[in-house]
Order: sequence, then structure tokens, then C-alpha cells
Amino acid sequence: MVFWFNSDRERGRVFAEAFARDLPDLPFVMDISERDPEEIRYILTWTTPPDLHRFRNLEIVFCIGAGVDQFKTETLPSNVMLVRMVEDGIVRMMQEYVTLAVLALHRNLKAYIGQQADATWRSLPVRQAAQQRIGILGLGMLAQAVIERLKPFGFPFAAWSRSEQHFDGVDCYHGPGGLTPFLARTDILICLLPLTKDTQGLLDGELFAALPAGAALVHVGRGAQLDHDALIAALDEGHLSGAVIDVTEPEPLSPEHVFWRHPKITLTPHIASATQPETAARAVIDNIKRHRDGLDPIGLVDRNRGY
Amino acid sequence: MVFWFNSDRERGRVFAEAFARDLPDLPFVMDISERDPEEIRYILTWTTPPDLHRFRNLEIVFCIGAGVDQFKTETLPSNVMLVRMVEDGIVRMMQEYVTLAVLALHRNLKAYIGQQADATWRSLPVRQAAQQRIGILGLGMLAQAVIERLKPFGFPFAAWSRSEQHFDGVDCYHGPGGLTPFLARTDILICLLPLTKDTQGLLDGELFAALPAGAALVHVGRGAQLDHDALIAALDEGHLSGAVIDVTEPEPLSPEHVFWRHPKITLTPHIASATQPETAARAVIDNIKRHRDGLDPIGLVDRNRGY
Repeated sequence: MVFWFNSDRERGRVFAEAFARDLPDLPFVMDISERDPEEIRYILTWTTPPDLHRFRNLEIVFCIGAGVDQFKTETLPSNVMLVRMVEDGIVRMMQEYVTLAVLALHRNLKAYIGQQADATWRSLPVRQAAQQRIGILGLGMLAQAVIERLKPFGFPFAAWSRSEQHFDGVDCYHGPGGLTPFLARTDILICLLPLTKDTQGLLDGELFAALPAGAALVHVGRGAQLDHDALIAALDEGHLSGAVIDVTEPEPLSPEHVFWRHPKITLTPHIASATQPETAARAVIDNIKRHRDGLDPIGLVDRNRGY
Repeated sequence: MVFWFNSDRERGRVFAEAFARDLPDLPFVMDISERDPEEIRYILTWTTPPDLHRFRNLEIVFCIGAGVDQFKTETLPSNVMLVRMVEDGIVRMMQEYVTLAVLALHRNLKAYIGQQADATWRSLPVRQAAQQRIGILGLGMLAQAVIERLKPFGFPFAAWSRSEQHFDGVDCYHGPGGLTPFLARTDILICLLPLTKDTQGLLDGELFAALPAGAALVHVGRGAQLDHDALIAALDEGHLSGAVIDVTEPEPLSPEHVFWRHPKITLTPHIASATQPETAARAVIDNIKRHRDGLDPIGLVDRNRGY
């Protein structure tokens, strides 16, 4: 029974130490060239490794990231569990980034940085938090953690999710029918959806048109959810006032892409959140212990939903 | 008995409505040219009005701002109370601005904006919140409100104040002897002190030298607390990594000032926080009612301390 760490060696060293300390009976390997594939019980990886059928005793594939859209789930045997990364480091970084992005839009930071470059000392109109309606696409664990940090500032909050959900102090909308009314009351839209066939290309011209004039976007879902041309059109015609974009399709963007120099776009290179090895090792070890105790791992992916 | 609103007419209209509704027995005036000065019982103003001795029945001077350093308190008769503005709008805006500034420094926003201008897709080293020690100069109401928003992110927090104070979950230092150990453990320093003779010029070369290498500054106190040349020297020699500056001496800064174009400085034109007329009118009305009930107004300035 072996755990195969199929990711970067730098994080692997942190994992190896944690496994040696907390799961000393489970061999931890980064190189399987000398191993019989049938020994492999757990794999931690970014995406499906080749020749997966070799690992006949495989029980769990742990994804090193929070999203699993890069997996070809149809190649995973149905008895193998696929587990998303649910760990404190990812959550904290996402809380930081989205709070930063929302406050930067709310307080006109990009305009003030522009004024600084022009040596212009001028205060811009103030909008109170109570008049800045935030809407979040997605109501999973990351979205809930983000709401927890942003709500105390006094922003009115709504969320939209695929299926019906409830969350204290948040106006919850769901399903295709709930999308338009949700967008109509949203001044700053945060996308924190997983990438699925339903969310691919969701952030398009029709969606932007359903937002009120002057609305802004924070995109921290997946690149393929965003129609780049539609965003540029909505910004250039003045319907949207700004966007903070952390994910694109493809990544990295080519140096010629219009996002780099657009005055209303703040672009970051997919750094909103990343798996932190210390907390991630803790989360994987805890999940292996849950599995040994007959419990479902935290972050178990529903193959039908795709997340 | 008359209330004299000696400030801008735009905010005055909001105050007038609130007074008519909630204190209908107290005449509210913006123009006192037709009034007997002896009628004036309360003044709301930014600084000491001329010929104050005319107002022989004056009881309270309300300052429209949170800081009262612009008052010549020695010209105020000792029986007249001076009251700082303590209102929800100022507090909320300060919470927003300081959270934005700290997260921008913590997540390298200025460097990412620079990379965007160069079309560079590269992630920068991540520092966990638990390794980013925040220190706040001042532990008054605004500082406490800022701590309340920032602490949940997981930053280790310390505060320094003139006299000994305690605050849950914050390492509290005080007095001249506490300053050096407080600075030695501070990676991001927030200045939220009132301007007094003791805090004038406090942010100088000696103070910056006492911070660890790579520390950063968020300055939202008063302009005269900061030695501009010392800040530039500390940034240019690489001892400090960045600064977010909202207050300067003088304001506005001249267009030639080095702060405008310094690559490690984010400069905003004293917009961190401003009195919001709706909530400020509520606070002043509540204080007049307290005064009528024989209670001290909230925000009463101690003439000896100067705040």
C-alpha cells in the first residue's frame, strides 16, 4: 500500500515530512519507477496520469488543486474516488484576493493609481457599502468563506447556485430562472464557479447585459467561463465599469492580448489562490484517515456534477 | 438656543433635514448674519471660527472631522466642550481603506500591476497571513474597528498606544519604551494616531530603522507625522518594501513631489475616510440629546491629550 505524490518536488518535500510524522505506516513515494503499480493505493496529482489502468488497486485520486475540470473523469474507473483539494491555505488566499479585488473596485483604486501617475489630487465620488450590492456566482466552500470576510463591511449580498441553497444573511437565487433577477441586483459580480459544461462561456455578452449599468466583475473561477470579446465590448461601451481578472483561457495570455493594457482591467496571473503544502498535507492525511475509518473524504467529487 | 452649521452647504442640507425631523425644537442655521451671537449654543465646524468670544452662551463645538489637530484649543474657553466626529460612516470607510491597503501590500498588488503593464505572466512568492505581522500605531476607536476587520484573515496583530491598553487577541505595547519592541515585530505598520506634539514627525528615519527589513507602511494618520525624506530614503535603500500614503503635509502635494511617481508608493488624496452626512447628523443629534440629559458627548476631546 503506497501513496504516490505525482507533483512538484518542492511541495513534495513538505508532504513527505508530514506523512513520515503522521502516517508512518504508509510508504510515501515521488518516484514509482521501482514500484509495482499494483502497490499504489493513493495518487496525488494535478491531472489523470497516463496508463491509469496499471494501478489496479487504486482507491483515491487526490487533486492538488481546488478545481478538477482538467481531469478526464471518464478515464477514471468508477470505483476510484476523485477528491478536490479542500484545505485552509487555498481558502485563506481566496478570501484575501476577493476581498482585495472587491475593495479595490469599491474604492476606485485603479482610478486613484491613474490620478497618481498624473499627479492629480482629487477625491472621487464615494459609494457607501450599503449601496454596493455584491453578487457571487457559486455558493460552495470558497464562496461561503469569501462571504464571511466581505459581509461585515456592510455590502448587501446575494448568491446564485445551480441548485437551491440557503445561507444566512445572503439572498439566494438558483437555477437558470434565478440568474437574471440575481444579475439585475448585482453591482459587483464575483465568479467562483467550477468549470463544467454548464458554466463554460457563462460570462458572455448576454450575462453582462443583465447587470445594471456601471457594474464590475471579479473573475476567479476558470478562464474558459469568460468570453473575452464580450467583456471588452461591455467595458468599452461603458456598460461595465471595471474588471479584476485572475484566470484566462489560455494561460498564460499572449503578450499581445488586449487584457494586459486595458485601462479598466486589473489582470493577475492566476495567483488568487494556490495550494499551500503545509495545510494541504494535513488535509490529505486527514482524508486518508477518514477513508480508513470508512468515511467519505472531504472534497469527494460527484462525477455527474463534475465538481 | 441655536445650532450653527459652519460647513459646506451640500452636507448642511442633509443635516438640516435630520435636525428638522429629530430635533424640531432646536433652530438649525447655516447663516448667522441675522442672528444674535449670544443665541448660538452649538457650532459644527472644521476649525475654530473667528471671534469666538462673541458666542457667550456657546456650550459645544462639534468638529466635522475625526481629528481636531486643526483647532487652536487655547482659543476655546475652558467651559466649552470640543467634540470629535465619531460616526459610523467614518469608521466604515477607514475599515475599507486600511483593509484594502494591507491586502494590497500583502498580495503584492503594485508589483502585479507593474507586471501587467509589461505583459509579464509570473507569480510572485506567497507569504501566508500567519507570517505577516501587522502593527497598528494607535488603539482608539478607528484602530479597534480596523483590527476587527483584519484580524479574521489570520494576521498576527500588535498595537502601540500612548498609555497602557488591552485589546483581545492583540499584543499591546505602550509608551516610549514599548515602541522599539513593537516595531521590531511589525511587517506592515499602520499609523492611525491623532496629530499631537508627541506624534508630529514620529514616522522618521529612526522609526523606520527599527522595523524589520522589508517592512511596509500604511499611513492614514496625519500628514505632519511623516518625514517624507526619511520615507524615500528607507524605500530607496530597500529597507522598506512599500508604502500606501493617504495623508501628507501639505495637502495637496505639489505636482513635483517625489511621492507621485515613486514606484514603491501608492498615494491617495486624503480619501481613506470622510464624514458621511447621514450618519454624522445622527451622531451629532444623539450627542445633543446626551448633553441635554447631563451626559458627556461621545468623542469629547481631552484638552491635555489633544484628542
